[in-house]
Amino acid sequence: MAGQIFRYKYRVAYTDCTVGNHIYYARYLDILELARGEFFRDLDEPFLKWQNADTIFPVIECRLRYKSAARYDDLLTVEIGVGELDRVRLGFAYRITKEGDMDIVLGSTIHACTSVNEKLKRIPDVLAAKLAPYVQSTSP
Amino acid sequence: MAGQIFRYKYRVAYTDCTVGNHIYYARYLDILELARGEFFRDLDEPFLKWQNADTIFPVIECRLRYKSAARYDDLLTVEIGVGELDRVRLGFAYRITKEGDMDIVLGSTIHACTSVNEKLKRIPDVLAAKLAPYVQSTSP
Amino acid sequence: MAGQIFRYKYRVAYTDCTVGNHIYYARYLDILELARGEFFRDLDEPFLKWQNADTIFPVIECRLRYKSAARYDDLLTVEIGVGELDRVRLGFAYRITKEGDMDIVLGSTIHACTSVNEKLKRIPDVLAAKLAPYVQSTSP
Amino acid sequence: MAGQIFRYKYRVAYTDCTVGNHIYYARYLDILELARGEFFRDLDEPFLKWQNADTIFPVIECRLRYKSAARYDDLLTVEIGVGELDRVRLGFAYRITKEGDMDIVLGSTIHACTSVNEKLKRIPDVLAAKLAPYVQSTSP
Repeated sequence: MAGQIFRYKYRVAYTDCTVGNHIYYARYLDILELARGEFFRDLDEPFLKWQNADTIFPVIECRLRYKSAARYDDLLTVEIGVGELDRVRLGFAYRITKEGDMDIVLGSTIHACTSVNEKLKRIPDVLAAKLAPYVQSTSP
Repeated sequence: MAGQIFRYKYRVAYTDCTVGNHIYYARYLDILELARGEFFRDLDEPFLKWQNADTIFPVIECRLRYKSAARYDDLLTVEIGVGELDRVRLGFAYRITKEGDMDIVLGSTIHACTSVNEKLKRIPDVLAAKLAPYVQSTSP
Repeated sequence: MAGQIFRYKYRVAYTDCTVGNHIYYARYLDILELARGEFFRDLDEPFLKWQNADTIFPVIECRLRYKSAARYDDLLTVEIGVGELDRVRLGFAYRITKEGDMDIVLGSTIHACTSVNEKLKRIPDVLAAKLAPYVQSTSP
Repeated sequence: MAGQIFRYKYRVAYTDCTVGNHIYYARYLDILELARGEFFRDLDEPFLKWQNADTIFPVIECRLRYKSAARYDDLLTVEIGVGELDRVRLGFAYRITKEGDMDIVLGSTIHACTSVNEKLKRIPDVLAAKLAPYVQSTSP
């Protein structure tokens, strides 16, 4: 990635794993939610604050490419950047690695910005300004 | 068990399993929810109907005893009876088996009867009448 | 889709839902696994049979587009077809609907064909022959 | 509790919550697994080390009492102590709180000590010695 990046550490638990001792393919989306949550908290803009201000970010698309297996007790690093920052759309780019440089998953999610009743609304300027340094010129 | 019993079939998926190819211990509670849902649907009293009538049944206690492992693709039978039927409390007794008679899990859950805002309320008579034949004289 | 299609019914449970009463975005991948499992069982080629013959189908990519929210107790239909059928790769195309024609999720997964030790191997001819009628000329 | 206690912090995510914005009842067992994992890591006795030494601790019983709801973004504290320390059995007692002193869940799990092939074996002395200070004279 080529903008600023937020990093989140995650320890793989038995609940994440399936037969054959690797993370079940859906569980990565749970892990990406945790990473997004801590990213926004780190920006001092937690999702709950925005939800209380009638602004939520429902996922409208996700894509994951599974590169290698992660196993029980592995310590993963989730790198998260902003892949797209539009008037009403927000995209994240993710890279999950272990042991420094082994790619586990590359992925992206695209979110709408809406009211709690799911009407499209403009991404708040204050949030867009904080996200801008994380915009990636190339996706992972 | 010694009253009427409702039976629900469940096929074990990869998402339920963990390292060592057995069902992760929390997943049984998900399976018990599915069994309760189909039990109430079979009584023609689906939970959604009661929720729309401002009556829900939050869990206040659960207990599970794990007897044998269930594995990927096993076809489980969940037996469900009523362990307790009080003015404002409702308990279920469960037995999960495979291959006819191998005990996998024995368990119970206790639920309050409340409004959607979680104020205790009396279990509706019509529901209590339908549940009465399923009351077990002895727990599993 | 424009080839043969397998259909799988799924009833939404509380375990699938999150805040705001809609299915959590990762849970759809669990539902797609259930649909694939029943598809292969319907072909008389359950995944367990192939696993016991040292042939598994790990996911190497998935993509989901979320069109509308599904809610507690909704009865979903998962349509599944074959999007790609290569020498060592197998792709599925999915459409999840409710109430007959409301699109909930459109998606795809791509799987490798490997030994249990994750060495690439050719998709068995007998399986490829059974999947062929389900190949879609256009993706959903 | 009345012995030494290990404390683990957990931030509630959307993936944990269900309709009505509270943690789904099964998810607490996932959280307790995370707490046990960090407890044993803190003792310098991670479960993976023991698994590699052919010693695992399958759950044979669990019990949870739900006292209050936990909601999205709540920061939970899991207190964990040893409820039982036998030759081949190990029990944990848990108390999950939020905002310092509001009880969310009180619970316990009982584990066997077995080989990876699930034959009972004696709890290793070195582990028993490290767990001894955490034995509770009264359960929570």
